[in-house]
Amino acid sequence: KKIAVLPGDGIGPEVVKQAIKALDAVAEVYNHEFEYKEALVGASAIDAVGDPFPAETQEVCETSDAILFGAIGDPKYDNDPKAKVRPEQGLLRMRKVLGLFCNIRPVTSYKILENASPLKPEIISGVDFVVFRELTGGIYFGEPRGRSENGETAFDSMVYSKEEIKRVSRFAFEAAGRRKKKLTLIDKANVLATSRLWRETVKELGEAEYPEIEIEYIFVDNAAMQMIQNPAQFDVCLTGNMFGDIITDEASVITGSLGLLPSASVGNKIGLYEPIHGSFPQGAGKNIANPVATILSAAMLLETSFGMAEEAKSIRDAVEQTLNESIVTPDIKAEKHYTTEEVGDAIAE
Amino acid sequence: KKIAVLPGDGIGPEVVKQAIKALDAVAEVYNHEFEYKEALVGASAIDAVGDPFPAETQEVCETSDAILFGAIGDPKYDNDPKAKVRPEQGLLRMRKVLGLFCNIRPVTSYKILENASPLKPEIISGVDFVVFRELTGGIYFGEPRGRSENGETAFDSMVYSKEEIKRVSRFAFEAAGRRKKKLTLIDKANVLATSRLWRETVKELGEAEYPEIEIEYIFVDNAAMQMIQNPAQFDVCLTGNMFGDIITDEASVITGSLGLLPSASVGNKIGLYEPIHGSFPQGAGKNIANPVATILSAAMLLETSFGMAEEAKSIRDAVEQTLNESIVTPDIKAEKHYTTEEVGDAIAE
Ligand SMILES: CC(C)[C@H](C(=O)O)[C@@H](O)C(=O)O
Ligand SMILES: CC(C)[C@H](C(=O)O)[C@@H](O)C(=O)O
Repeated sequence: KKIAVLPGDGIGPEVVKQAIKALDAVAEVYNHEFEYKEALVGASAIDAVGDPFPAETQEVCETSDAILFGAIGDPKYDNDPKAKVRPEQGLLRMRKVLGLFCNIRPVTSYKILENASPLKPEIISGVDFVVFRELTGGIYFGEPRGRSENGETAFDSMVYSKEEIKRVSRFAFEAAGRRKKKLTLIDKANVLATSRLWRETVKELGEAEYPEIEIEYIFVDNAAMQMIQNPAQFDVCLTGNMFGDIITDEASVITGSLGLLPSASVGNKIGLYEPIHGSFPQGAGKNIANPVATILSAAMLLETSFGMAEEAKSIRDAVEQTLNESIVTPDIKAEKHYTTEEVGDAIAE
Repeated sequence: KKIAVLPGDGIGPEVVKQAIKALDAVAEVYNHEFEYKEALVGASAIDAVGDPFPAETQEVCETSDAILFGAIGDPKYDNDPKAKVRPEQGLLRMRKVLGLFCNIRPVTSYKILENASPLKPEIISGVDFVVFRELTGGIYFGEPRGRSENGETAFDSMVYSKEEIKRVSRFAFEAAGRRKKKLTLIDKANVLATSRLWRETVKELGEAEYPEIEIEYIFVDNAAMQMIQNPAQFDVCLTGNMFGDIITDEASVITGSLGLLPSASVGNKIGLYEPIHGSFPQGAGKNIANPVATILSAAMLLETSFGMAEEAKSIRDAVEQTLNESIVTPDIKAEKHYTTEEVGDAIAE
């Protein structure tokens, strides 16, 4: 199995390295062979070849069976509004080109992290849901977009077709079937025409193909409230690109486990797996970054792209064990702290 | 002074009644005369005359000096996607027609409510910020919007002009000048052309007219995280219509004081004041709704529309006193609970 490895910027390379240790351990125990091919992406790719998603990287991705991604972003581009090439452009192009239209983000609360959560323990206890975000449509890509000729007006277009909505919805319905048979659609159907199409399409699809799944509809502003007041009510959520961007980031901090949350972006045959957290430039090179989110992303990769459920579970179990033994990086409250490398070694071990 | 009174739906009428008691008390003590004119709005207006914002209501608003608004919304319209006339349409039309382009939502934490907040006390301690949301532009009103001819595709347009951005930004800059001289613009400039126009325009306006105000730029997904992780960092926030809808609702629940938060919508000469909470249909007619948010909205009305700062303060002081004396409705944890009427009476008293 070929795995494209895109470490990216900031702490990306350090955490990806630990995930590879875990993959190597799995390969040894279960007798698999993983071939890694590294490629440039993000700010480091701009610095090296002037393009945040170079053709060579695309080639590496397209000839692999799955992609392991670190993180991208560098303040030197973030703070320069005039920068012509930006790391984000590479990210968006990559999603589009590779057909990664479905972003999957599980959110789980960990007992050991109750101290780290900004929310009260009774609010986050038992939180365990997953958000499906459409990732290659909506206002991120809709045309027309730009400026009027005199520069006085700007515009963006939120566009969705039934087909785009259906294909991502199927992923969410399938997951709901494996979980609690409930799907929550997050939209703004009281204002947006696109949201009304979402509602209509999801309802039709549900009735036609997933009659056993109960569908709940909730406005995005209300969802942003409920996510804080009662996140345990959610199980499988489904939403568009823009609302998903906001809601998944909000969701990622409620349990205090940002450093532990993996994600997958799928659609075409090649899936991409990455931690939810960013490139954390201030932490780069210090051997302090939490590698768990990336290691759990590798587990998602094994399960989702390679159908290796047992192997994935072995990684998850190892992560749980190290957490229980308090072998954790400094972002997690503990008596003693370990380095990125040490945590990576312990999990692989 | 003429005040248009639009009680609306659900608990709206009950809480508005208490606010009028407070206004009457102010009138007596400070020797003012307030003339109230009631009008229909929302679901109750649809039920009565088939229009959520009837021409007569518009007329009442336009011939008043300020508007006191309750809440609108009724589940019988919410859950019927095919309903031709919806309460929200009235709300949006009202905002547009009355030129209420600037929505102002202060968020304050109250010591007495620390128990009620889903967030930990150390996170919300000292939270005191205000969000300025553009209210008559962006994707809420942009054209084109609708469906393709074959019905397979839907689209909405997010449109902003420099002028629209400037006029709402001035309100935020002025507030920042009276507060901590810091303004946080919330946008998605790494993806949206409209957000880049926001950034450019706010920067230009700041440099030209408010050089003493420090401007901070933050992406909306990050803002949704920060609002939970460290809300005390915010002071004056400024954002567009759609992002404002999500962020202000998120903000309104972090301190547990949803029942206490007022809001103002201004722009033209006639301002509108309303509680942040909704119509809470399950609580209607039970004399249990918390009237404080509406009473504090009346205080905002006095200060903002009538320049009656002292009178407004007298209402705020009265509210604080009743809170300190635990004269509160059942939504607030206390040994003994009071009815809507009783809390309203105590504050007026
Ligand atoms: C960097 C940015 C363009 C991106 C997005 O908005 O999709 C990021 O926030 C994410 O969620 O992956
Ligand atoms: C009811 C709805 C149209 C409205 C909005 O989205 O503006 C509401 O959520 C609000 O924030 O006042």
